[in-house]
Amino acid sequence: MDEATTRTLTPSRLADRTGTDRAGLDALLDEVLVAHVGFTSSEGPLVLPIGFARDGDRLILHGSTGSRWLRVLASGVEVCATITSLDAILVARSAFESGMRYRSACVFGRCEVLSGTDAESALNAFTDRVLPGRAAEIRRSTPRELAATLVMALPIQQWSYKSSDGFSEDPAEDLAGDAWAGVVPLRTTWVDPIASPDLRGGIAVPTSVLTLTNR
Amino acid sequence: MDEATTRTLTPSRLADRTGTDRAGLDALLDEVLVAHVGFTSSEGPLVLPIGFARDGDRLILHGSTGSRWLRVLASGVEVCATITSLDAILVARSAFESGMRYRSACVFGRCEVLSGTDAESALNAFTDRVLPGRAAEIRRSTPRELAATLVMALPIQQWSYKSSDGFSEDPAEDLAGDAWAGVVPLRTTWVDPIASPDLRGGIAVPTSVLTLTNR
Repeated sequence: MDEATTRTLTPSRLADRTGTDRAGLDALLDEVLVAHVGFTSSEGPLVLPIGFARDGDRLILHGSTGSRWLRVLASGVEVCATITSLDAILVARSAFESGMRYRSACVFGRCEVLSGTDAESALNAFTDRVLPGRAAEIRRSTPRELAATLVMALPIQQWSYKSSDGFSEDPAEDLAGDAWAGVVPLRTTWVDPIASPDLRGGIAVPTSVLTLTNR
Repeated sequence: MDEATTRTLTPSRLADRTGTDRAGLDALLDEVLVAHVGFTSSEGPLVLPIGFARDGDRLILHGSTGSRWLRVLASGVEVCATITSLDAILVARSAFESGMRYRSACVFGRCEVLSGTDAESALNAFTDRVLPGRAAEIRRSTPRELAATLVMALPIQQWSYKSSDGFSEDPAEDLAGDAWAGVVPLRTTWVDPIASPDLRGGIAVPTSVLTLTNR
């Protein structure tokens, strides 16, 4: 676990853009809900947080046709979509050896615009990824809603995946000292759902939400 | 709360790069530990997750001098550092009106390299931001460690801040239906610290860690 890895979460080399730990990549992509999608805009580099879902070998992204930057993504510019999970603070006996446990992936490529039933099924995959089974609980999107939605797929072809685990590797002189070392894990949990103030009486929390929150 | 806001978390316009809700920005920057820093590299757009700390009107970033991409950042390329907190899933009566509650900021600019005591005090600020009071619990960094660390500051001058709160705004025909609507909040918590396997006996969990975990 080198310094660059633990302290900066930095992919050390872009040249080798195809990682090997596809299972690790998929686990991360199936756990984190927001990708940070970077591209070079006419006004300089821009990084947008966008909700995403993995659908097999692609990431599904979507948004409003009214969004200027979504339309730039849809034009097929080169992107780097970075997905990160911060898992713990790594507490070493010195600042230098301290860092973070994390998993992080970059997916490089260009988005392809989906249309028709491809777009609709990709949106359903996104909905079910966020709330398992939700697509079947709600009405279908109307043609007007679909027309107002830009649906894109970013292929998982060029990617990198890095993770940092374990404990600090302090030098002998620090090991002999009095400073504590260990990790402080970070946990992300879904908490009790809150009904909309305008919800009609007698409508129970649906299975999709119960599944998400494990209740 | 428009479609672009709730569904894509997208800053709608980059032209107005200076936000007005500085208190909201600072609260977000003081809560999230990882920034997604984007820039245009020789190999295309790249987004790196980097641990950061706000120190007044700047973001402190650091990493190994051995990291190629850190050195590119240190060269003063234009960057967009995006910091996001996903706060809840917004469950509407339709997929179209569903989205996320979030807060997100972009800080635009160029990193300045810090050196000498500036670098050292910035690193201490970073350490104390992650673990309150930690800098005073551990030894000072050695000259050799400092020489191996790139410390940078990104001024908080050009920035945008967006947040999405509230509940879905469903059309009347959906309000009359049987679908549930509400939010499912996401909570991030620090859990019990785990001591390093090589920790000597009799060293208690330090105040900095207890402060972080509120125990």
